[in-house]
Amino acid sequence: VTTSESTLLKHIYARSAALKSALGDALEIGPGDDCASIHVSDGSLLLTVDQLVEGRHYAPETPVDLIARKCVARSVSDIAAMGGTPLASLATGALRTTFERENELFDAMHRWANEFGCPLVGGDIARVDGPTVLTCTALGTAHPTRGVVTRAGATVGDGVYLVGRVGGSFASGRHLTFRPQVEDARWLCDALGVSLHAMLDVSDGVGRDGARIGEASGVCLEIEAARLPLHDNAHDWRSAIGDGEDYVLLFTSDRDPGDVCAATGEPITRIGRVRACGASEPSCVVVTPSGERLDATEFGWDHRGA
Amino acid sequence: VTTSESTLLKHIYARSAALKSALGDALEIGPGDDCASIHVSDGSLLLTVDQLVEGRHYAPETPVDLIARKCVARSVSDIAAMGGTPLASLATGALRTTFERENELFDAMHRWANEFGCPLVGGDIARVDGPTVLTCTALGTAHPTRGVVTRAGATVGDGVYLVGRVGGSFASGRHLTFRPQVEDARWLCDALGVSLHAMLDVSDGVGRDGARIGEASGVCLEIEAARLPLHDNAHDWRSAIGDGEDYVLLFTSDRDPGDVCAATGEPITRIGRVRACGASEPSCVVVTPSGERLDATEFGWDHRGA
Repeated sequence: VTTSESTLLKHIYARSAALKSALGDALEIGPGDDCASIHVSDGSLLLTVDQLVEGRHYAPETPVDLIARKCVARSVSDIAAMGGTPLASLATGALRTTFERENELFDAMHRWANEFGCPLVGGDIARVDGPTVLTCTALGTAHPTRGVVTRAGATVGDGVYLVGRVGGSFASGRHLTFRPQVEDARWLCDALGVSLHAMLDVSDGVGRDGARIGEASGVCLEIEAARLPLHDNAHDWRSAIGDGEDYVLLFTSDRDPGDVCAATGEPITRIGRVRACGASEPSCVVVTPSGERLDATEFGWDHRGA
Repeated sequence: VTTSESTLLKHIYARSAALKSALGDALEIGPGDDCASIHVSDGSLLLTVDQLVEGRHYAPETPVDLIARKCVARSVSDIAAMGGTPLASLATGALRTTFERENELFDAMHRWANEFGCPLVGGDIARVDGPTVLTCTALGTAHPTRGVVTRAGATVGDGVYLVGRVGGSFASGRHLTFRPQVEDARWLCDALGVSLHAMLDVSDGVGRDGARIGEASGVCLEIEAARLPLHDNAHDWRSAIGDGEDYVLLFTSDRDPGDVCAATGEPITRIGRVRACGASEPSCVVVTPSGERLDATEFGWDHRGA
């Protein structure tokens, strides 16, 4: 590491003092040694990593606090998508040589990681002659009774549900300020138990992500366009089903969860149902208000750039 | 994700079939869902992440297999440095837009991760208009009886030891082909037990990394230049103490481990001893063949470029 990187790492280690409280006795060794060490209990450990690329997942002029927030929140949202509870995280930054607010960035990552219940226990920093590339690895524990909720359990006859609203996330800036639905996912596990069949967080649009559940489960998710719960700034159902970066839970269940999450107050909307999938049929179809049946993946978000 | 990234991710998921054998029943869910899930037992979990930046940690013309190897090996070496056993890993690639051997790269990462006992269970891929940035997050379990070996336990009177040889790593290409000393570390834990006081893997040079043990332990490591076990291509003790990227274990102990690791055949060399540290003294000093005492951190490697 260069001298400036050593200084920056020391700054980060200093921040680790705050970790003790956030992780409690589970944190055995924080940042500053070759590895962090945390105490884990016998069970399922959830693991995920995501990258955040400047100019792709955020515009260069984005406030540092929101860059940090999005970087952590995306990985925490993946933990929620499996019904898990965040445990700890590690972050890396390959920072554009001209980026000078590195202390502020890593302070903000620490703060958001704590806020989301997923304290940073390690990391690495380098300089790069190109766009900044951040990563966040998140660990979580599975729900104690429901276990790990995958994409593969959707069953013919299930209802298809969304927690919260979708559409217009990039245009509104919500892709930077969303709250990972950790409490919502835990409540669904509590309330539905084994009837919570399949779940994920919508990152590439309801159409594409719905097809992921359909594909993994060997079924077809049929979504009614008119039922999609739109954000005020979402133009119409097409943008709502195709826009990405919503980071809301999409799940299927054979039990009605009711129309609100009691833990958070988020609306829960039944947007369709699970059907058997014909031989060459798409894994997710959208039924338009005029009754057309379209391949829902055609509306998927492609992360075309910030 | 873009279409090409989706295709690449599918390619990676296909590789995950091989994971089942490598992780055994501990792998509950492999790549392809929001998170991977592995079974862990009650105890200490080691966590580390490292970045590998094109043009910095490897030259652009480096064979893809060796890029992949180094990316995984560096993180596995951090697990070894704590006396741990690798468990699983996650990788990311922000790939330069002109880089076209992505399948080969991720195949190689899978292969090396399995080879080093640290199977890849998740990852993320993006394209970037700049140098390629790879990361590898590694998880490990602590030694069952010795527990986690940190940098902070060095005690006045300890011997200071190196496993293997140092110097000339970059010039020789060894920085790309080193074997993480996992078995060596485990053997040291077995053989020395609580007498294995402090340990790390040498990445920034024996001088700088020795000072890290000294600082963390509140002592001074005194290294005799003439005792340093040099690689054939290392010019002299100055380069051997200052060159980085050796990835060999540096440890202190109040018991003599003998001069060879019985598990691997690597030589073990006593290179100095631990002394009390005066008020404004450096945490690591090197005693030259002519008897001069110099601040050993002055010879530290700065990762100036590949």
